[in-house]
Amino acid sequence: MTRAELPRQHVIILGIDPGTAATGFGVVARRSGGAVSLVECGVIRTSTKAPLPKRIREIYEGVAGLIERHQPFAMSVEDVFHGKNAQSALKLGHSRGVILLAAALREVPIAEYAPRQIKKAVVGTGNASKDQVGFMVKQQLRLKDAPTPADAADGVAAALCHALMGSFPA
Amino acid sequence: MTRAELPRQHVIILGIDPGTAATGFGVVARRSGGAVSLVECGVIRTSTKAPLPKRIREIYEGVAGLIERHQPFAMSVEDVFHGKNAQSALKLGHSRGVILLAAALREVPIAEYAPRQIKKAVVGTGNASKDQVGFMVKQQLRLKDAPTPADAADGVAAALCHALMGSFPA
Repeated sequence: MTRAELPRQHVIILGIDPGTAATGFGVVARRSGGAVSLVECGVIRTSTKAPLPKRIREIYEGVAGLIERHQPFAMSVEDVFHGKNAQSALKLGHSRGVILLAAALREVPIAEYAPRQIKKAVVGTGNASKDQVGFMVKQQLRLKDAPTPADAADGVAAALCHALMGSFPA
Repeated sequence: MTRAELPRQHVIILGIDPGTAATGFGVVARRSGGAVSLVECGVIRTSTKAPLPKRIREIYEGVAGLIERHQPFAMSVEDVFHGKNAQSALKLGHSRGVILLAAALREVPIAEYAPRQIKKAVVGTGNASKDQVGFMVKQQLRLKDAPTPADAADGVAAALCHALMGSFPA
């Protein structure tokens, strides 16, 4: 389902959980009344054996493709790196950079949320476990099961967070 | 001077010293005999007050513009982050990611060199000071003065390193 098929009073939000090996994404539609439904979710995977420029190109093209297909009103991205390791942070930064660029080049507004904010918005507490997040995503989007794999669920949670917390045209 | 104006036996190398506030670049031409000359150097600056997506878009468009203008045979980039701070590494990763992407999307081969390798290639020792690098860049490229500012000189050093160390068509 693409935006063109949805009634006008929907806004589409693309949520992204950045990573180098696996970038999770979730696309949700928010109705003017505030109800949110899932449009699509999944994972952009890159081979750990491929050179870094090839991997970030795949991530960039994956996100650019989602933006072109869904024409989102906004992109919502997890904004803080929790690790202490500078090398992992540098690597994650490469992926995050090309993800932000995909939106910036297409004039899509970017909302950034800390993992704690996403958990708080979706579950009600910043300390929620992965399982609790999955459960509440399932409840709020009226799904039969929580989205899998976990990276896709995190992308959906980022989108849902912005659908609940962001400002939208009436 | 762009590549089109140079004799065919030249190869153009674009060197980049990635940063978020200042990305240094140097463009050199390597003759088939091995002599290297400077074509252009400078710095892509972004405002620390601008939001990150705008800044990385400016870096991406700056590097993409250099690639389109000079049609380099290869891009040479500094490859290691020396800091221990994960937040600085994450930030640098954003810039580095969009720089690699600019080359990857245009099928420009990327060579990555550690700062020590660049110093070793240009000065002869991996422990060279900034001043020594500037002096040897000036000597090797037969310039009146070392390139300024330091970020531009580092971009030129990255290009010169690949001109001296890389493999090229005869």
